[in-house]
Amino acid sequence: MNQYSYCVMTQGLPKTKRGLERRAQLLHAAEVVIGDKGFSMASIADITREAETALGTFYIYFRSKEEIFRELVLEMGRLTRAMVAEAVTEAPDRLAAERAGLHAFLSFVADRPALYRIVEEARFVDPEAYRNYFTSFARAYAAQLRRAQAAGEITEGDAEIRAWALMGISKTLGERFVLWEDKPDIDRVVEETFRMISEGLVP
Amino acid sequence: MNQYSYCVMTQGLPKTKRGLERRAQLLHAAEVVIGDKGFSMASIADITREAETALGTFYIYFRSKEEIFRELVLEMGRLTRAMVAEAVTEAPDRLAAERAGLHAFLSFVADRPALYRIVEEARFVDPEAYRNYFTSFARAYAAQLRRAQAAGEITEGDAEIRAWALMGISKTLGERFVLWEDKPDIDRVVEETFRMISEGLVP
Repeated sequence: MNQYSYCVMTQGLPKTKRGLERRAQLLHAAEVVIGDKGFSMASIADITREAETALGTFYIYFRSKEEIFRELVLEMGRLTRAMVAEAVTEAPDRLAAERAGLHAFLSFVADRPALYRIVEEARFVDPEAYRNYFTSFARAYAAQLRRAQAAGEITEGDAEIRAWALMGISKTLGERFVLWEDKPDIDRVVEETFRMISEGLVP
Repeated sequence: MNQYSYCVMTQGLPKTKRGLERRAQLLHAAEVVIGDKGFSMASIADITREAETALGTFYIYFRSKEEIFRELVLEMGRLTRAMVAEAVTEAPDRLAAERAGLHAFLSFVADRPALYRIVEEARFVDPEAYRNYFTSFARAYAAQLRRAQAAGEITEGDAEIRAWALMGISKTLGERFVLWEDKPDIDRVVEETFRMISEGLVP
């Protein structure tokens, strides 16, 4: 045990650069191992082996497999929000933002497939983390849809229901056309989907 | 062991009414128990206790917990297809069918919440069954969208991508506005969603 012994997530991050790096290394290893084997089959020994650290090192940063799992779900939340926010910064209006946001999300799924699976597994492993992940994303999304409606950029409608419907599209297309494809054609999926959500099905 | 010993799914259903009833009783019990505890925590003993049968009875109809789980996923597939097909029979065109289909699906989630969770858990427990479930549904859905396009009932677009996008909407709204709500307001969710997918977001 050393100075990092109590630097678990609830009490803040490690204070040194080396500590932060070790923690990030363990998180990355957990993403690889849990994404591959699933939560119940992945052991802490698998994670430290993948991270090339001693088994005891794990417990300096995390109390349990449950805790590092939850941290990965939080990480996925931070990353997707940051990544979508960045992608839509340049968008001139909400419709352009929808297109850019969907593209960014699908590209993210292609880059970090394990995180996608980990969030989905959270439904069973840590239902509260799962729910928080989607609820906080939906809240921010709905707020943006409301602003866009007020600005006359999109049609009127219930922003919360729409946010979840649009998230459902991204999530399912990410699984079907990214995770399940060897060579995802993200551009085509985005164009087709954007056309449907912007113009609708009515001829 | 008796005459039903080999009447597992791959070799056909039990031949007597009593056998069929017992099998259905076990499936129902598995739906309740696995939906509640999750696959790994649910035991065959839990299932036979719930079904009020002897432990050995289970093995007359199913080889393993994996087999009854897969059968539940297939059951969910048959039920959702039949239920959506019936709901849309009366629909005069594809748009009306979209509305009726979404309503029927959300009502089904309200009636059989355990089956929803079981299909989602299949992503981890039985990835092949999970994929088959959605792929076969999507195939039939896309075929209907193609026919509707040809008939001029909906706008042009890639039917496969659209089918998955629309399934993603149903799936996610089912979780958020049915499973997570004490008193789901299915009518409102359907109206709002239908408006978005039929008219789109462009003002």
